[in-house]
Amino acid sequence: MALIVQKFGGTSVATVEKIKNVASRVAREKDKGNDVAVVVSAMAGETDMLIKLAREVTDNPDCREADVLVATGEQVSASLLAMTLIDMGYKAKSYLGYQMKILTDRIFSSARILDIDTKRAKQDLDDGNIIVITGFQGVDECGNITTLGRGGSDLSAVAVAASIGADTCEIFTDVQGVYAADPNICPNARKLSRISYDEMLELASLGAKVLQARSVELARKYNVKLHVRSTFSENEGTIVTTEDDEMERFVVSGVTYNTNEAKITILKVPDRPGIAASIFKPITDANIVVDMIIQNISEDGYADLTFTLPKTDAEDAVRIVTSTADSMGAKGVSCNDRIVKVSIVGVGMRTHAGVASTMFTALSDEGINIMMISTSEIKISCIIDDKYTELAVRTLHDVFDLADKNATEEE
Amino acid sequence: MALIVQKFGGTSVATVEKIKNVASRVAREKDKGNDVAVVVSAMAGETDMLIKLAREVTDNPDCREADVLVATGEQVSASLLAMTLIDMGYKAKSYLGYQMKILTDRIFSSARILDIDTKRAKQDLDDGNIIVITGFQGVDECGNITTLGRGGSDLSAVAVAASIGADTCEIFTDVQGVYAADPNICPNARKLSRISYDEMLELASLGAKVLQARSVELARKYNVKLHVRSTFSENEGTIVTTEDDEMERFVVSGVTYNTNEAKITILKVPDRPGIAASIFKPITDANIVVDMIIQNISEDGYADLTFTLPKTDAEDAVRIVTSTADSMGAKGVSCNDRIVKVSIVGVGMRTHAGVASTMFTALSDEGINIMMISTSEIKISCIIDDKYTELAVRTLHDVFDLADKNATEEE
Repeated sequence: MALIVQKFGGTSVATVEKIKNVASRVAREKDKGNDVAVVVSAMAGETDMLIKLAREVTDNPDCREADVLVATGEQVSASLLAMTLIDMGYKAKSYLGYQMKILTDRIFSSARILDIDTKRAKQDLDDGNIIVITGFQGVDECGNITTLGRGGSDLSAVAVAASIGADTCEIFTDVQGVYAADPNICPNARKLSRISYDEMLELASLGAKVLQARSVELARKYNVKLHVRSTFSENEGTIVTTEDDEMERFVVSGVTYNTNEAKITILKVPDRPGIAASIFKPITDANIVVDMIIQNISEDGYADLTFTLPKTDAEDAVRIVTSTADSMGAKGVSCNDRIVKVSIVGVGMRTHAGVASTMFTALSDEGINIMMISTSEIKISCIIDDKYTELAVRTLHDVFDLADKNATEEE
Repeated sequence: MALIVQKFGGTSVATVEKIKNVASRVAREKDKGNDVAVVVSAMAGETDMLIKLAREVTDNPDCREADVLVATGEQVSASLLAMTLIDMGYKAKSYLGYQMKILTDRIFSSARILDIDTKRAKQDLDDGNIIVITGFQGVDECGNITTLGRGGSDLSAVAVAASIGADTCEIFTDVQGVYAADPNICPNARKLSRISYDEMLELASLGAKVLQARSVELARKYNVKLHVRSTFSENEGTIVTTEDDEMERFVVSGVTYNTNEAKITILKVPDRPGIAASIFKPITDANIVVDMIIQNISEDGYADLTFTLPKTDAEDAVRIVTSTADSMGAKGVSCNDRIVKVSIVGVGMRTHAGVASTMFTALSDEGINIMMISTSEIKISCIIDDKYTELAVRTLHDVFDLADKNATEEE
C-alpha cells in the first residue's frame, strides 16, 4: 500500500464533467488500496475572473484582501471534488489552507510555505478518507489567508507530499509529460520518461511551463518523486527524481526558451572599481531580479554593461539605470525587449566536451546572432533576437537529437 | 463615539457598483467618529449559483462539503468590500468565520452560534480598522466550516453586535423598514418607527421576511438594539428594541401572512388517552416541526385532529400519519396545501379586549371562513383558504387602522 499525492490543475477541473473525470482517476488509485491525498487548483478561468472582479473595484487591490478573494477558487473546486467522491461512495473531506495548517510567511500573493501540520490529515487518511486539499493557498501564523503565486498548486502538492511522506507526487496536467522541446514548435520532440531534479529545475527556470520551478526545488530538497502526466490519458508521463543509473543518457535532455525577458545596455561606463555595484544596488533595492549580466571592457578605459531582467520590470529599471548612468557619466542607456533566451539543459554536459561549441555553431549556421551567453554545469543559455525563436528551438532540437525515435510519421 | 454593526444583505452587495455604494455608507459612519463592524451576505444570486453547481455534481451534496462551497459567497463579498474601503483610504480588514472564530455546533447548513471570540476584532477596531465579517458562516470546534441557514447573515450580525457590545446593529435591506402590512398588498401601510422585540419576533415567525426570526430572538436575549433600514436611502427605518414608553401605542402593530404551510387532518380517531402522542411522536422523530394543532372531540367518542406544518414536509408527514392512522383505526387522512396563515400582532392586545372578535368579525364579513385559530398573548393567527390572502390582509389592515396617516395620496 502506497501513499500518493495527486495534483490536478485548473484545466483538469474546469467543469463539473471534468471534476467527475478527476474523481474517477482518484477513485481508481484508492481502489488499488492506496491512500490518496489530492491537491486541486481553481477551475480554469476562475482565478482570472476573481482578479477581474477585484480590478473593477480598484486598480490596486489590497494584497491581503486579494488573497482572501482568489482563495475562494480552490475552495470551490476542492469542495466539489470531495462531494463528487462522497457521491461515488468514498469517504472524502476537503481541507482548506487553514484546516491543513499550511503555514506560510506573510508575503501576500507570493507566500512561502514554512510548515505543514499533518496530524489531522494523517488521521483522516488512516480512517480511509480521501483528502482533497486546496492548492495555491496557506495561512500565516495569525490565520490570515495567503497565496503562493501562480503555479502555486504544484508547490502545495510537493509540500504536502513531503510533509506526509508520500511515495509519489503525481502532477496531472493537460500534456503527456515533459518534452525535450516544446511540441508546438517541434511536433516530434521526445517525451522524457525520467529526468533528474537538476535538469527539471533548469528547464522550469528557463521557460518550460509544465512544472513550477519552486516546486521542483522543493521536491529535490525533500526527495519527493514527481510524476508529470496527463489527466486525460492512462499513459505514463515523466518521472522527476534523483539522478540514477536507470536514466537514459542523453547529452542534452531538452531545449527550452523564455520570451519574458528584456535586455538593458549601459554604454561607455567609465571602467573603475565599484561601477557594477553602483548600477545594480538601486535595481535590487527596487525588488527587480536581474538574470544575466555581461561587461565588455574596451581598450580606452570604458565598459559596456548589459543585463537581462523580466520584461514587466524593464520600464522601472530603465528609469533607475538612466539616473545612475547619468551620475557616473556613461554615454547612454538602451533597452531591447524583442529578445528570447534559448537554453539547452542536460546532466550529460558535465562529461561531454564540445556541447557549447555545437550549440553556437548550429545557431551561427542559421545566421542567428548570439547577443549574450550564460552557462552553468548543466545548461547553456543564449540571448538572441526573438524573431528566431522557433528556428533556434528547431535547430537545437535537431542537432542534439531530441526527436522521438519511436514516433511514426503519422504521429 | 459609538460602536455600530452594519449588516448588508445580498441585494445590497449584488454588483461592484452596489458594493461601492455600501462602502460609502460604511465610510460615512466611520467619518462620524464611530467604530464600525460590517457583516455582509454573498452577492445576490451567488449562493443559488453555488448550490446549482453542487446539484450538477450530485442530487444530494454532502452537508460538510456544501457548507465549504457556499461559504465562498460571503468570502468574495467581504474581501471586495474590504478592498473597496482600503482603496478609499480607510483601514479595513475582512474576517472569515474561522478568523472571527464564530464558533457553532456541527449541524452543517443550519448551525447554531455558540460563542464568538472578539479579541482580535476588538484590537483591530481599536487600531482604527473597519472590520468586514462574512455573514452566514461559522466554524465548529474542529475548524470545519458551518453555515447558519438562509437568512443567517442577520443572525451573524446580531451575534457579532452582542459579542462586541455594539450600541446598534443596523440591518440594511431593500425596503425602508418594517411595515404594519406587506406594502405589496397594502401600499399605504404604515412604516413602524419603533417596535418591541416580542412583536418583531411574532411578525418574523409568522411570515414577515424583513428579519430572520432567530436573529430577533438573539437580539432580545442580548438586548441588541436593531435598526432595520434601507441601503438605498438615508431615511430612518424601524428600531427594534425593548418595549418602552416612547413606543407608539397601537393595539395591533402589524398584520402578516405565511403561505408556506399545509394542513393535515386525521378523521375520526378513536378518542382515548395518548392518541396525540402516538400521532406526533413519529412526526417529530422525522424532524418535522408542527405548528398549530386542533382536536375536535365529537359526541360519539371519536376525534378529528388537524395540524399545520411546512408545505415541504407535507408529503413525508402524510405518509407517516397514514400509517399511524391505519394502526389506530382512524377513518382517513386528508391534506390541504391551499391555505394561508394570516396573523395580527401587537403588545396592545394584552390590555385591549375584543381584538380577537374584531378580527373574526372582519373576516367573516368578507365571507372568509376560518379553519383554525391559534393565539398567544400578543398575536392571533387564523388559517384560511389561500385564495383570500390579499383580501384578508387588506381587511385586517383597514379594520385595525394600519395605514400611514401622513401618507399623501400620491405616495
